[in-house]
Amino acid sequence: MPSEFRLTRTVEFHETDMAGIMHFSNFFRWMEACEAGFYRSLGLPLISFVPGNVVGWPRISASCEYKAPLRFNDTAEVRLLIKEVRTRAVIYVFQFRKLGEGGRVESSILAQGEIAAVCVTSDAAGKMIAQPIPPEVKARLQIAPESAYAAA
Amino acid sequence: MPSEFRLTRTVEFHETDMAGIMHFSNFFRWMEACEAGFYRSLGLPLISFVPGNVVGWPRISASCEYKAPLRFNDTAEVRLLIKEVRTRAVIYVFQFRKLGEGGRVESSILAQGEIAAVCVTSDAAGKMIAQPIPPEVKARLQIAPESAYAAA
Amino acid sequence: MPSEFRLTRTVEFHETDMAGIMHFSNFFRWMEACEAGFYRSLGLPLISFVPGNVVGWPRISASCEYKAPLRFNDTAEVRLLIKEVRTRAVIYVFQFRKLGEGGRVESSILAQGEIAAVCVTSDAAGKMIAQPIPPEVKARLQIAPESAYAAA
Amino acid sequence: MPSEFRLTRTVEFHETDMAGIMHFSNFFRWMEACEAGFYRSLGLPLISFVPGNVVGWPRISASCEYKAPLRFNDTAEVRLLIKEVRTRAVIYVFQFRKLGEGGRVESSILAQGEIAAVCVTSDAAGKMIAQPIPPEVKARLQIAPESAYAAA
Repeated sequence: MPSEFRLTRTVEFHETDMAGIMHFSNFFRWMEACEAGFYRSLGLPLISFVPGNVVGWPRISASCEYKAPLRFNDTAEVRLLIKEVRTRAVIYVFQFRKLGEGGRVESSILAQGEIAAVCVTSDAAGKMIAQPIPPEVKARLQIAPESAYAAA
Repeated sequence: MPSEFRLTRTVEFHETDMAGIMHFSNFFRWMEACEAGFYRSLGLPLISFVPGNVVGWPRISASCEYKAPLRFNDTAEVRLLIKEVRTRAVIYVFQFRKLGEGGRVESSILAQGEIAAVCVTSDAAGKMIAQPIPPEVKARLQIAPESAYAAA
Repeated sequence: MPSEFRLTRTVEFHETDMAGIMHFSNFFRWMEACEAGFYRSLGLPLISFVPGNVVGWPRISASCEYKAPLRFNDTAEVRLLIKEVRTRAVIYVFQFRKLGEGGRVESSILAQGEIAAVCVTSDAAGKMIAQPIPPEVKARLQIAPESAYAAA
Repeated sequence: MPSEFRLTRTVEFHETDMAGIMHFSNFFRWMEACEAGFYRSLGLPLISFVPGNVVGWPRISASCEYKAPLRFNDTAEVRLLIKEVRTRAVIYVFQFRKLGEGGRVESSILAQGEIAAVCVTSDAAGKMIAQPIPPEVKARLQIAPESAYAAA
């Protein structure tokens, strides 16, 4: 079954800008918060600094398309899907949908983003080097069918 | 002559994350700061809330590719180029290069991003609606040759 | 009964800094998020831009004392109490306590902050001017006994 | 001679909020950026992760009083003064003044803040512990007369 995680979240005042909408950079922070929630839900550490077992996920690329704004106190759902799993990298897709009256998730997507992250450890000198995704992590990264996110 | 603007900036402590590098979302904020500097350099308002003459530039899309990290106290140059100018939208390219010893800009690009922004005004009800880029702005948006940024 | 509101929240990756802890400025954002949650719980708008009835709460002062850090994925509770209500201003106290094993709130306070906010509206020219707190808001602002927060 | 450092800076779009002014939390980030500039001007590291010589400055407290707002594209000067130097801690005062026409610093203070920071190193287990301020740093921390900041 494809991996999936949903984060529900309300726009905070400091996330808005003088145009009255959530600043576009904050959509990337919501995506990352959703990714962190996904890893917590799996009981897997997203990041580890344990010497000898350092794991991190620096970003190779990030993008977002914005179709409608979010405003202060708006509540939205961020849905994580997995687009691609490579030996050392994973590509996530994130869909943003507003919660309307009664807490129902609206069908239209207000923003859709993508983050590609590479799995790294650190070498003896403390420098980050790419490493294969640990098998216990990889086992939980199930890609979604393209139909789940391509329509956006 | 193609439009161009260069912003030089030093990584602040709050811009770093626990991995010791500038958080990927902050590259988008640097891009926008560079865009704002570009408009100030032209003597044109990036944004205006003057009733009857509201102008804003909400983002349609934003993306960034990361090749090397920035760390606390690193200084880097963000260079704005213009990729495309449409009737109601503009696409910027931003190149990040580190300043090395002696303040010389290094040749390699550590990150490259793109922002597409649509020119809007507000209708009588205060709703944002797309409008043609004002001619005095459009006159200053000169696209760069693809060779200026495609190699990255 | 004294007003009170509790917000539970998990530290996000972008909220950490290179020292591995939540950046001190973010405690102020959590305080404000708690204030926003308090107003939502009352069904009262924290802020309104409705012409003729503009209400805002710019800050007169803000402070925080830090006793212990928060780290990535730590969950903490922010508790809002009301210290003082004046004609045009309110002073909130915010207490931060970590959630330990089993989701139990730890007794020790890891940070305690204060925000003083003045109630404003806008005059005909759009300038912010202080105004008495609207009575329907004031009725819901019940101060806490000093013992509730002074021990910290 | 009392230590002093001045940082000049322009409000960025993402630093504003929907009330159209710089979000109050960002004043703390400007203070810290000013502190970082002060240490760079001294040629001293503000922070070091060199094993055996770890130095950091976590905050004990931070506060700010706001008298006037900053808006997008406003330029202001942050002036660092030293209020107190203890064995293991230092207290900074930061004054914010707007740059008016012609780049002249206005006399009135729009915000004044204070940060108390404790000097720490890390013990063998990686835990932060307070340490005396290194003598080469302490020698550069010259307190300002109270008259320099008390009038605000």
